Amino acid sequence: MPGYTLTITVSQPYAEAVEAVRAALAEQGFGILTEIDIQATMKAKLDVDVAPQIILGACRPELAHHAIAAEPSIATVLPCNVVVRAEDAQTTVVEALDPDAMMGLAGPSQTLHTVAADAKARLSAALASLTQET
Amino acid sequence: MPGYTLTITVSQPYAEAVEAVRAALAEQGFGILTEIDIQATMKAKLDVDVAPQIILGACRPELAHHAIAAEPSIATVLPCNVVVRAEDAQTTVVEALDPDAMMGLAGPSQTLHTVAADAKARLSAALASLTQET
Repeated sequence: MPGYTLTITVSQPYAEAVEAVRAALAEQGFGILTEIDIQATMKAKLDVDVAPQIILGACRPELAHHAIAAEPSIATVLPCNVVVRAEDAQTTVVEALDPDAMMGLAGPSQTLHTVAADAKARLSAALASLTQET
Repeated sequence: MPGYTLTITVSQPYAEAVEAVRAALAEQGFGILTEIDIQATMKAKLDVDVAPQIILGACRPELAHHAIAAEPSIATVLPCNVVVRAEDAQTTVVEALDPDAMMGLAGPSQTLHTVAADAKARLSAALASLTQET
């Protein structure tokens, strides 16, 4: 696993895992603002076959608001992407961009680091809940 | 300007600039896969007023395909966000996440760096075209 993501592997088929991730993110106060079905997009645009995978753009508005107020440019790394990717028929990888990595791009701002810590705690809790439930 | 973005300021009202950015990105082969109207979202979710600003998720499918094939986790930083933000009634800031910064998160992969260089050249051309046209 690369150092810039929070990753968990679940013993669940892809479609079930996507629904579980949505529920876990909602439980932690994240709304899903964007969705990109990578498999469908690659098929439609390039006629290539890739594994089922989706990018869910998760946003907790309070956190986004604080972050943007502190540094408007941080909007270029929002929302926080959570990727769900089929590894095989019964195994799915769930991978979120680590807010620490996002903030590593920015300068040393106390507000941004507080926001990142909150986002990371919530994303970690969401991912952890996925394995507790299975 | 922070080191992780490609930024340009244009002497154009916000709404006009958003349309110019869309056209400039299309000219460079980027589709817009996601859109988040930050001003509308903040108003709806938190009832706070922020300057007009939007996140456009730009994707060139060929580049995304190569990047994901080389490193599936890189999907957590896709698509490439381009933020358009009103500075005042006649001035708009256009800011893209610098692909070099995205790739700085990943390990040393020749494929990823080739893709990032291509994406950066296209985004830079798109931004440069905005000032040439005004």
